[in-house]
Amino acid sequence: MNTDQSLRLRIENLFTNYVHAIDDDRLEDWPDYFTDAGRYRIITRENHERGLPAALIYCDGNGMLRDRISAMRNANVFDPQTYCHSGSAVQVLGAADDGAMSVRSNFTVIRTMNDGAMSVFACGRYLDRITDDDGALKFAERTVVIDSRRIDTLLVIPL
Amino acid sequence: MNTDQSLRLRIENLFTNYVHAIDDDRLEDWPDYFTDAGRYRIITRENHERGLPAALIYCDGNGMLRDRISAMRNANVFDPQTYCHSGSAVQVLGAADDGAMSVRSNFTVIRTMNDGAMSVFACGRYLDRITDDDGALKFAERTVVIDSRRIDTLLVIPL
Amino acid sequence: MNTDQSLRLRIENLFTNYVHAIDDDRLEDWPDYFTDAGRYRIITRENHERGLPAALIYCDGNGMLRDRISAMRNANVFDPQTYCHSGSAVQVLGAADDGAMSVRSNFTVIRTMNDGAMSVFACGRYLDRITDDDGALKFAERTVVIDSRRIDTLLVIPL
Repeated sequence: MNTDQSLRLRIENLFTNYVHAIDDDRLEDWPDYFTDAGRYRIITRENHERGLPAALIYCDGNGMLRDRISAMRNANVFDPQTYCHSGSAVQVLGAADDGAMSVRSNFTVIRTMNDGAMSVFACGRYLDRITDDDGALKFAERTVVIDSRRIDTLLVIPL
Repeated sequence: MNTDQSLRLRIENLFTNYVHAIDDDRLEDWPDYFTDAGRYRIITRENHERGLPAALIYCDGNGMLRDRISAMRNANVFDPQTYCHSGSAVQVLGAADDGAMSVRSNFTVIRTMNDGAMSVFACGRYLDRITDDDGALKFAERTVVIDSRRIDTLLVIPL
Repeated sequence: MNTDQSLRLRIENLFTNYVHAIDDDRLEDWPDYFTDAGRYRIITRENHERGLPAALIYCDGNGMLRDRISAMRNANVFDPQTYCHSGSAVQVLGAADDGAMSVRSNFTVIRTMNDGAMSVFACGRYLDRITDDDGALKFAERTVVIDSRRIDTLLVIPL
């Protein structure tokens, strides 16, 4: 499909800003990458392929996104960990009637524990609907399909 | 080297489509990314650096690519696993007399087992010859140089 | 921020050439990606976030970069290992008064041991100042912020 290169660059910039906000632990900025009504969910690949809607994490609207971050900040007393996202294979699939673009891509997150141990924390794909929100591209919907069913949802940062 | 940006984007689109076909387990689509006479091989870095031609997997022509997928589908009774490719460092090295472009890039594949365990399954580089096949870019040759000698060739999906 | 696409492509080419030089073990080419006065350092994320300047590795000027490679070549008698870099999330942050561009990005390095075992060797971010040095982009400064404090500095290749 023939995608405008400047649009593609804008999409990649959105992804890049999103990743650095999380990896920098600027989680309070994370909801800003979504529209007011933006949806975010994390679903296992297994459920996704079976068409089962059950999500591990589901936030509907910017308020829920902000609540999630507040809850994380208040609840989490675990050892400090750091996360490093990498993304690739960005594919612009098309635009819906409302102008929202469907985009998919792959991601990997490496987690580093306080003692220095590193491991793959999550990998899978992003399935996004992206819209132009008053001049800035934002996620109307971001579905994170994770390959592994084994994830500690209590600890999970935004992916 | 000065590469036309739209050509570069077309190459990256080929890589992206290829990756998603494999990660989606749409392996029957995999041969479509090669020309009729397309060659595919997986070789260890050790053999590659010593100039030894012995490949772990060698497919010469689209028929052999399709045979390989059929064989995999029939033979493999192992637990379901999923794969997540990431690619980077795409370098267009030049064009040969026949118009085929030489391209190299790096890749990593994370495998997720049925129980949720994730690990690096393979990493290394792609050495490609890419041609315009009636309007679509395809692999005339894809050589996958894997860093590790320790790979179970019975289980190996297309990389 | 609105970045010229051709500039962005030049930056990505610099990153790509850099990565392939290291992964190919062409370490003698590594200093060529820096200006004469180019600085290179590896610092832990912990120290970086606390504003502590202590670096694990610090090279100030091209001579020190070359010395480091010579020392590695002479000293290292360990088993052969290979490295595979991947990079993503390239963000051009702006240009300073002297024209140097500030760029950040993420990286991951997978190490493969001689027996075939693969693991995440390092991950984190690059914080770069990049200048046009007589027509070629080069690093005036590359700061590698690694997520893990657990790294064997004796063994460390350029990241």
